[in-house]
Amino acid sequence: MAEIPGRSVTSKVVALFDAFGPDSPELTLNELSARTGLPLSTAHRLATELVAWGGLERCDGAGYRVGLRMWELGSLAPRGESLRDVALSVMQDLFEGTKENVHLAVCQDGQALYIEKISGAGALLVKSRRGGRLPLHATGVGKVLLAHAPKEVQAKVLAAPLARFTRHTIVEPGRLVRVLDDVRGTGVAFAYEELTLGSLSVAAPIQDASGAVVAALDVVLHTTGGRPERLAPAVRTAAISISRALRDQQIRSHP
Amino acid sequence: MAEIPGRSVTSKVVALFDAFGPDSPELTLNELSARTGLPLSTAHRLATELVAWGGLERCDGAGYRVGLRMWELGSLAPRGESLRDVALSVMQDLFEGTKENVHLAVCQDGQALYIEKISGAGALLVKSRRGGRLPLHATGVGKVLLAHAPKEVQAKVLAAPLARFTRHTIVEPGRLVRVLDDVRGTGVAFAYEELTLGSLSVAAPIQDASGAVVAALDVVLHTTGGRPERLAPAVRTAAISISRALRDQQIRSHP
Repeated sequence: MAEIPGRSVTSKVVALFDAFGPDSPELTLNELSARTGLPLSTAHRLATELVAWGGLERCDGAGYRVGLRMWELGSLAPRGESLRDVALSVMQDLFEGTKENVHLAVCQDGQALYIEKISGAGALLVKSRRGGRLPLHATGVGKVLLAHAPKEVQAKVLAAPLARFTRHTIVEPGRLVRVLDDVRGTGVAFAYEELTLGSLSVAAPIQDASGAVVAALDVVLHTTGGRPERLAPAVRTAAISISRALRDQQIRSHP
Repeated sequence: MAEIPGRSVTSKVVALFDAFGPDSPELTLNELSARTGLPLSTAHRLATELVAWGGLERCDGAGYRVGLRMWELGSLAPRGESLRDVALSVMQDLFEGTKENVHLAVCQDGQALYIEKISGAGALLVKSRRGGRLPLHATGVGKVLLAHAPKEVQAKVLAAPLARFTRHTIVEPGRLVRVLDDVRGTGVAFAYEELTLGSLSVAAPIQDASGAVVAALDVVLHTTGGRPERLAPAVRTAAISISRALRDQQIRSHP
């Protein structure tokens, strides 16, 4: 494959990393080359440099995978690990109190990125995974994040086709706009079988010291688990506890 | 500052990332330039490209920090997140059973890198943090990892001066070699106030499907918590459970 002229080396390095994802945790050199559009020789040279650094690792076979150095650097990301550290104990309490899946998510590139998930033997099996992404318009945390996202993010999500996952997914932009108004007004978001049949979500916003919504918390349960409205006070209370802990931590680190 | 000639762009990009650490989560452009040896203009250009990608983020002030995209990519590292996912429930059980700090660590660059830490209100306050590093020769998990490390890693650690943290730290290479023999023979490692006065550690190895030691598990408790030997069966049992779960998972993903 001919190399794209004028492409910066930095863009090639990040393209190599972007080739990996939850569905492609291991890639051969051929796959890396195909996914990045880099010639084999360039992909090999850059991958070798990244292996020497630790950002990539060789697999037992012929492939490459994301290296532990990326995990270590990622643990320094304030919007990931620090947020999780602050939220974890409250999330564990909410799990103890409800015995249902508890999620913490932030908005990234117009999607909900799941920062932490607490689950247990009795909880519903759900699609979410730590480090995974789900769409904003079809999940509880996603609706909270979208309702409080910058106008340009909202406009972009509403302008694109809204993917339909079940017959309950909201795919009409006008209806979604009204739902987001409700979410801002009530401080709580629901999703009723909008991503997966049989699954309900109750979500609330987490605010930082400036009052900005920086994350969302939700509980996901089976539709047989009773009316989701009964869980709204628990989820809102937990989200408020995390918001307070976040403010306290910000005041401690930037007094 | 004059740029080092012949330095590859990849090496400059990774130098920018390496400038960040647990003690330097936020850096100004001047600090980035000083820590990487890159001219301000180069550091600015590369940092701007990495911000656009999401690997770095701008802080509220003048600085930069590690971005959420690094956290997301890091969550794909098998030796980090996948290992943690497999180990987590057993670690929680061990914490429930002991009410003491439980750590999971792997060997990285001749140090113990902490992948997960479970702690609670009653547990001793310890130096460890998720994503942090501690020396191999002065911790329980470190001794396990060093005892089973490749010969060249052992030789390197034993050849370098062994840092003294307390009067109990083992700083004589010959004595450390004998301790590592014991660790391999007994399948358990102890650290008695070797990193911090008042703190004990009991550790055991975690093996993958091939029998290689890929991680270590320990419990860290106060010296007033009784003889550490009494915890050895619990820690070994938990480490064996995690090893078995790891084998099962490897067999499922590579049948």
